[in-house]
Amino acid sequence: MSAIPDFPAHPFDARGDDKPREECGIFGATGVPDAANFVALGLHALQHRGQEAGGIVSFAPGVGFSSVRRFGYVRDNFTSADVMKQLPGQIACGHVRYSTAGSKGAAIRDVQPLFAEFAMGGCAIAHNGNLTNAEALRAELIDRGSIFQSSSDTECIIHLMARSIQRSIPERMKDALRRVEGAFSVIAMTRTKLIGVRDARGVRPLMLGRLTNGGWCLASETCALDIIGAEFVREVQPGEMVICTADGIESSFPFEAKPKKFCVFEYVYFSRPDSVIGGHSVYETRRRIGVELAKENPVEADLVCPVPDSGTPAAIGFSQESGIPYAMGIIRNQYMGRTFIEPTAEIRNMGVRLKLNVNRALIKGKRVILVDDSVVRGTTSQKIKDMILDAGAAEVHFRIASPPTQWPCFYGVDTPDRENLLAAQMTVEQMRQHLGVNSLAFVSLDGMYRACGEKKRAAEPQFCDACFSGDYPVRPTDVIAAGRVKLKQDA
Amino acid sequence: MSAIPDFPAHPFDARGDDKPREECGIFGATGVPDAANFVALGLHALQHRGQEAGGIVSFAPGVGFSSVRRFGYVRDNFTSADVMKQLPGQIACGHVRYSTAGSKGAAIRDVQPLFAEFAMGGCAIAHNGNLTNAEALRAELIDRGSIFQSSSDTECIIHLMARSIQRSIPERMKDALRRVEGAFSVIAMTRTKLIGVRDARGVRPLMLGRLTNGGWCLASETCALDIIGAEFVREVQPGEMVICTADGIESSFPFEAKPKKFCVFEYVYFSRPDSVIGGHSVYETRRRIGVELAKENPVEADLVCPVPDSGTPAAIGFSQESGIPYAMGIIRNQYMGRTFIEPTAEIRNMGVRLKLNVNRALIKGKRVILVDDSVVRGTTSQKIKDMILDAGAAEVHFRIASPPTQWPCFYGVDTPDRENLLAAQMTVEQMRQHLGVNSLAFVSLDGMYRACGEKKRAAEPQFCDACFSGDYPVRPTDVIAAGRVKLKQDA
Amino acid sequence: MSAIPDFPAHPFDARGDDKPREECGIFGATGVPDAANFVALGLHALQHRGQEAGGIVSFAPGVGFSSVRRFGYVRDNFTSADVMKQLPGQIACGHVRYSTAGSKGAAIRDVQPLFAEFAMGGCAIAHNGNLTNAEALRAELIDRGSIFQSSSDTECIIHLMARSIQRSIPERMKDALRRVEGAFSVIAMTRTKLIGVRDARGVRPLMLGRLTNGGWCLASETCALDIIGAEFVREVQPGEMVICTADGIESSFPFEAKPKKFCVFEYVYFSRPDSVIGGHSVYETRRRIGVELAKENPVEADLVCPVPDSGTPAAIGFSQESGIPYAMGIIRNQYMGRTFIEPTAEIRNMGVRLKLNVNRALIKGKRVILVDDSVVRGTTSQKIKDMILDAGAAEVHFRIASPPTQWPCFYGVDTPDRENLLAAQMTVEQMRQHLGVNSLAFVSLDGMYRACGEKKRAAEPQFCDACFSGDYPVRPTDVIAAGRVKLKQDA
Amino acid sequence: MSAIPDFPAHPFDARGDDKPREECGIFGATGVPDAANFVALGLHALQHRGQEAGGIVSFAPGVGFSSVRRFGYVRDNFTSADVMKQLPGQIACGHVRYSTAGSKGAAIRDVQPLFAEFAMGGCAIAHNGNLTNAEALRAELIDRGSIFQSSSDTECIIHLMARSIQRSIPERMKDALRRVEGAFSVIAMTRTKLIGVRDARGVRPLMLGRLTNGGWCLASETCALDIIGAEFVREVQPGEMVICTADGIESSFPFEAKPKKFCVFEYVYFSRPDSVIGGHSVYETRRRIGVELAKENPVEADLVCPVPDSGTPAAIGFSQESGIPYAMGIIRNQYMGRTFIEPTAEIRNMGVRLKLNVNRALIKGKRVILVDDSVVRGTTSQKIKDMILDAGAAEVHFRIASPPTQWPCFYGVDTPDRENLLAAQMTVEQMRQHLGVNSLAFVSLDGMYRACGEKKRAAEPQFCDACFSGDYPVRPTDVIAAGRVKLKQDA
Repeated sequence: MSAIPDFPAHPFDARGDDKPREECGIFGATGVPDAANFVALGLHALQHRGQEAGGIVSFAPGVGFSSVRRFGYVRDNFTSADVMKQLPGQIACGHVRYSTAGSKGAAIRDVQPLFAEFAMGGCAIAHNGNLTNAEALRAELIDRGSIFQSSSDTECIIHLMARSIQRSIPERMKDALRRVEGAFSVIAMTRTKLIGVRDARGVRPLMLGRLTNGGWCLASETCALDIIGAEFVREVQPGEMVICTADGIESSFPFEAKPKKFCVFEYVYFSRPDSVIGGHSVYETRRRIGVELAKENPVEADLVCPVPDSGTPAAIGFSQESGIPYAMGIIRNQYMGRTFIEPTAEIRNMGVRLKLNVNRALIKGKRVILVDDSVVRGTTSQKIKDMILDAGAAEVHFRIASPPTQWPCFYGVDTPDRENLLAAQMTVEQMRQHLGVNSLAFVSLDGMYRACGEKKRAAEPQFCDACFSGDYPVRPTDVIAAGRVKLKQDA
Repeated sequence: MSAIPDFPAHPFDARGDDKPREECGIFGATGVPDAANFVALGLHALQHRGQEAGGIVSFAPGVGFSSVRRFGYVRDNFTSADVMKQLPGQIACGHVRYSTAGSKGAAIRDVQPLFAEFAMGGCAIAHNGNLTNAEALRAELIDRGSIFQSSSDTECIIHLMARSIQRSIPERMKDALRRVEGAFSVIAMTRTKLIGVRDARGVRPLMLGRLTNGGWCLASETCALDIIGAEFVREVQPGEMVICTADGIESSFPFEAKPKKFCVFEYVYFSRPDSVIGGHSVYETRRRIGVELAKENPVEADLVCPVPDSGTPAAIGFSQESGIPYAMGIIRNQYMGRTFIEPTAEIRNMGVRLKLNVNRALIKGKRVILVDDSVVRGTTSQKIKDMILDAGAAEVHFRIASPPTQWPCFYGVDTPDRENLLAAQMTVEQMRQHLGVNSLAFVSLDGMYRACGEKKRAAEPQFCDACFSGDYPVRPTDVIAAGRVKLKQDA
Repeated sequence: MSAIPDFPAHPFDARGDDKPREECGIFGATGVPDAANFVALGLHALQHRGQEAGGIVSFAPGVGFSSVRRFGYVRDNFTSADVMKQLPGQIACGHVRYSTAGSKGAAIRDVQPLFAEFAMGGCAIAHNGNLTNAEALRAELIDRGSIFQSSSDTECIIHLMARSIQRSIPERMKDALRRVEGAFSVIAMTRTKLIGVRDARGVRPLMLGRLTNGGWCLASETCALDIIGAEFVREVQPGEMVICTADGIESSFPFEAKPKKFCVFEYVYFSRPDSVIGGHSVYETRRRIGVELAKENPVEADLVCPVPDSGTPAAIGFSQESGIPYAMGIIRNQYMGRTFIEPTAEIRNMGVRLKLNVNRALIKGKRVILVDDSVVRGTTSQKIKDMILDAGAAEVHFRIASPPTQWPCFYGVDTPDRENLLAAQMTVEQMRQHLGVNSLAFVSLDGMYRACGEKKRAAEPQFCDACFSGDYPVRPTDVIAAGRVKLKQDA
Repeated sequence: MSAIPDFPAHPFDARGDDKPREECGIFGATGVPDAANFVALGLHALQHRGQEAGGIVSFAPGVGFSSVRRFGYVRDNFTSADVMKQLPGQIACGHVRYSTAGSKGAAIRDVQPLFAEFAMGGCAIAHNGNLTNAEALRAELIDRGSIFQSSSDTECIIHLMARSIQRSIPERMKDALRRVEGAFSVIAMTRTKLIGVRDARGVRPLMLGRLTNGGWCLASETCALDIIGAEFVREVQPGEMVICTADGIESSFPFEAKPKKFCVFEYVYFSRPDSVIGGHSVYETRRRIGVELAKENPVEADLVCPVPDSGTPAAIGFSQESGIPYAMGIIRNQYMGRTFIEPTAEIRNMGVRLKLNVNRALIKGKRVILVDDSVVRGTTSQKIKDMILDAGAAEVHFRIASPPTQWPCFYGVDTPDRENLLAAQMTVEQMRQHLGVNSLAFVSLDGMYRACGEKKRAAEPQFCDACFSGDYPVRPTDVIAAGRVKLKQDA
């Protein structure tokens, strides 16, 4: 099997595996010639949501369904005329992923969209999120004669659809999705219909857009609408199914209503700063977190420096609120990629230097505030602090634009287990000593909610903030069954 | 021939071919096991100076000289154990390039370092700069029986060395370099010597560093010393040859002295912001240009936004001087690469959107100052302005952190001919109208010199600023012979 | 999708697509370390049965099932240590194929062995033959909720097994195979069992061998036992299932008994000459066909030349019986491969010359008997005749070592439809005129049966000879349903 | 560096490295559109003369010279439209090689044709043979300032030409070739001239052909004329230079006359059996060697079997002379390629079985005469004997269709040193015992000369037979200087 490159985790993160990883970005378009080109562009704009692999399925009359799935970047796989002409038609959907739940080794058969031929025709499905009862469903389906081809939880949806006795694909889809638990935003397509669905809590985003020629598109984020010049129509609502056809949009709400629980980490880290979610600019929300952070945790210093690039908006906000000058104290190497050979002790452990370099002339003798978006394992924070001190900084103050990350996510984000989450193992003061910095402070839960436009965190919280609070809105059945986690409420 | 990817021109530039392109970065190391690993790391840090191709030559007793030259990024070509074990030894040098003068189609034989076997042993040469009399030398050498294998001007140096009657490689190198004209920083290596040379005017940079184990290295910029933890010793002086061996450093000045003419565009655009040149931080110089720009050309506005990423330091300076808030009004897609397919009129001309997206929620209704490092062809400036206006900006004011670029460079930078340089064809007011912005202003020559630490531009200018002034310190013999340019002084 | 090379059809055939193509070779081994290596070697020896693609599945405790499937030759895909270490374990099976029934474009998901996870564990299946009711079964299975992942008829067996209520994989396999019609030799494997099955008529071959260490193997032909030094134990009987485990061999006969119908074309063309089938040397059988041919159709001539390489044994027999000297009148280029570019009229139609060249000095002025194994479309026979005449032969006499091929095969061999079978469209005399040769003769059905060790063709024929006689032992349900053929008995 | 496949040495040899290896095949064409296509086809027909690499150079007005050089087979490298359109023009020449003298590791820069730009224009050179004074020339040229880019002896010719003061390329070529010693057939091309030259002794072949459109071609063997339908005009004479242009053929004899010394091993092994050399069919010559062998060394036996494929013609002759039936006792696997993994002792040493298999049913209990073309190291002969005895042969008699190979070749063939030549270390009886066969006999020198059409070997031998006799027609200066050989006459 050809090697799978060691991708940087996130375009706005220079720290490789010391970050949560979003699992997926999804995009679909219909009613436009060469729809797959629009999907490729949309997925390129969503590449930060998944860098490991991508796939596109299209349908054209006379040709049928076509599928290309590849490891690697959209720009490398879906840009040549040779590839794109394999994906003809006016309807297409696609997927970029980091990795699907349950996958140990990457295999092309796990790359979405998944496709199945039902008695009434073919259907492709691309899924962002995670099904918390997938293992249980899989065991039951195999027992009844279904053959699984992938390790993807998404395949459960397909087999549930195959066994539904409904006559149409949208109806089979409702049947299937009523059986699954967890968080999902799904884009599906048949020969004529582009379908978008969000779970009842609306944990993952899904946006509806209109192409300049009148066709429709669905995307994880608004930045993917911008790239193709599509108009942002509205968000698909929690619990809603929209069906886009030549005749327009059809909406239904097939699931039992639940309190809304949009993932607050989408604001804090995952989404692109130029996206708009829930009516708020992601960039502006992050800048406001920086403002809150400066209010809650002021400190005297000479410079405010972001950890590039994900800490940048909050650092700008911190600088504006505090009046301390903003500066690029750390420069990111834009050509980073696979890990370099490090055969001698002398050049070992230089990993982070391949990606980041301190602006030595600037930092020397200065008291520096470093603004970062989050602390997960803490491994990179330490290396960055070392670099800053090596360069001669007088003091280092860490300011973190999210609350302490104490709990793993089970709704479509790849986070470490609790024992590897620094904030699950230490108090803030212990963390400060561990990191070896002059001060360390996190924004409060309420501060974060304020930056997100809420007055404060409500009793029934307005977002899913389980990674910070441990309050899981959906019980993660499979992982509890596997003994992989003990919930706060079960303690 | 396998396709050569369409590389982004510069890590701090999101505009493809609408920028001058540096032709080379060079790096050498000696006195350290697995020297080629250090060279690979150094070249990775210099990747912004040349993205098309790279090469490394090493020497190990018993093995001899080894060479690997490849199209593409350092991170993709010089990271696998398979490749690096082909480059054994304690001395190595390497090169990244955009393209060498004279090359029409890229060929691997043009990728440096070039290597030749002389009677007294082998020698590899990596060259940053451009020889202005290469064509004349080549014709003469062919006439006398030399066989050229590449279209690289660097090969002239090799053939001149082969024909020298001196007994040692450094002496032959002096012989050869006394015959060439133009700008050059050269790293050469024999079995035991790592040699660095700069032309008498010192147009291109060359830095001397010391490895933590006591070995030596040479690099185009200090950022390449940082990545391997090497200590910055000093710059190689204009006109100096340094020879690094196990016994230490030997220095000589084999050329006739000339006024120093370091390339001011290295400050403005080419060098990495975290590099230090002539005792000045590149980042800080750019920030000060922003300060000068704000002083010289103030304007009322709501936001100061950089054109990412090369305009960022000047934008920070402009914001600090003017008091107008700094904001990320344009977000760069970090996964940009090859051009996408654009088969339909609907998605044509969206090139720039693949790389940049406007932060619409931020920009809407605002008066925006856009700070960019330079205007070359002006094609991208126009597209960016369109994007900003489409997003609903009330006003757009361009501020450029360099004087108008009016003349091509003949000293190792790939610039368009005069007819394609917007500032060579129009006044500033004509450019403003052409770009369709509310105002347009460039920093003055003196303002730029002040930011570079000079009081003002002297009668004998302290830098080579030919691209702005047309004052060429070395007559470009070949291009004048070819009728490709008419100099100001010849007008 | 990367290009699939234009493979030569058969190692003993130099004529590309003017030959029937065997669809598969299968091999399995158990009870030996690194079983996949034995499988790779066995498949290499069976490469003549399928050149388009190959796959191997292995099982190792702690690792589970591993699968590698690739387009191209075994020698190119299954020889590197990197690949083979992905296939650990003491049990493995594999497959080479030309193409599976129903496949229009080649896709890796159609490459066998196919694999499925059942409730009681995994199972891999490799299949040689063709199911004549696969389309009907597929429609029924989809209707009941099965999701097909390939266009292979073999997948029907897998889904039938998944839906069986039997508790063990061998019992589920019996359930499934009782539902299918047609010709099949199957090798399957579970974690501990290597299973071989032949259909009740025994159309396709399957051999049982014993490894030198006491382990067991199954193979399409004995030549694949020779390559690994395995002892030929016996043929798996028509209608038999053998299960090889650490404890030995277990045999059962789960299907209703049928008259034996081994494919006579295996003797005539498909099998390797060094294989032994039914106690007869394939080489010797072919030589004896040459003897029969010389007896039935003598002619005066100077030389007997084979059409290389498949005509060689019969040409030797013809020479021995007739006393006319045997000679290599046509030389085969051993480096043939993909079709060459033929951009000008001058070098067009030279296809066959890339593969074959006439030994001009030998042929000139001679009366030549050309012995070939069969005539299918007749296109290459004509080109060969042209080459021989161009070289100055005085006379050309074709002698064909099989009866006229008049009917397509539906049991696992890719033959043209009737309208493209020369012998289905013309009498022998018409064919002689069409080919433009001095004489043309085929061996008789009885002559072929005599060479195969029978006295004559019996009323209930001892072999399947449907391609010559039109007497199909199994009704080809799917193709009749699709109107693709009209049988002799239905006429 | 990408891996270089382990090529089979010779299409008519199944024994890998236990054979001498021809170093080159050359082909040129002019006066025909898309000349490079003809060159590709010609080189494909000459692939047996060199499998490691190949190259083609063409010239087209307005485009200039184009060159593509690649490792691997012609069929894999020079068949796609993409590659061939890189080689436009009406004149082209090419080269296939095993390896050039002096090359330790293969490098693309050693692949011919070599190309140089002289003052009067470009010139490409493809060379078959070996220069015996190349090392001495190289040292002298480097001393005078020439820079060598390859390890090929051919490059000496180029540098000698570059330094010639003659005004035309053909005259410079004469100058250069008068300075070299050894064996050479050279094809060169300029913008308008296709040039063929043979050394004065005519050791290596070179054929002149006429294309159907009136253009001209040059080729190592006539089989390369056949493939493109070219008429065989005549051999280029020893010591002759022919210049093919639009105006016809110009002939000259620029070298001092020498006794003719065509390589007799071309008849015995190198050339393709369908080629004609010196008016003799190579196939027929080999068959007659078999006849001589049967006369000189008769033996009672049941079967005459060739070692495929190079022993086939002599085996046919032996059978015809002796009356013992000819049979295919050994079958060759046509898909052999790289060496397989052999990780366990059980399957180790099975190398030869990957390529050859004994026809067990045929051999069992029989007295077998095995006819082979030559014995070099003897390693494979032993393995073949083992296979035959394992299969149950009663007796094995080796008959070799050449005299004992006792001396290395220095004229363009890669043979082992004397210590690795079995016949240089043992008497025939010792060899018989070493090989473990019932009898062993070689054809005599005179017998071989008779088969080649001579009455007997003359005092001044009619061929170069140094590999058998140790009588070297040209003193191998370089290897004597290096102490690599001690000649018979110097003993």
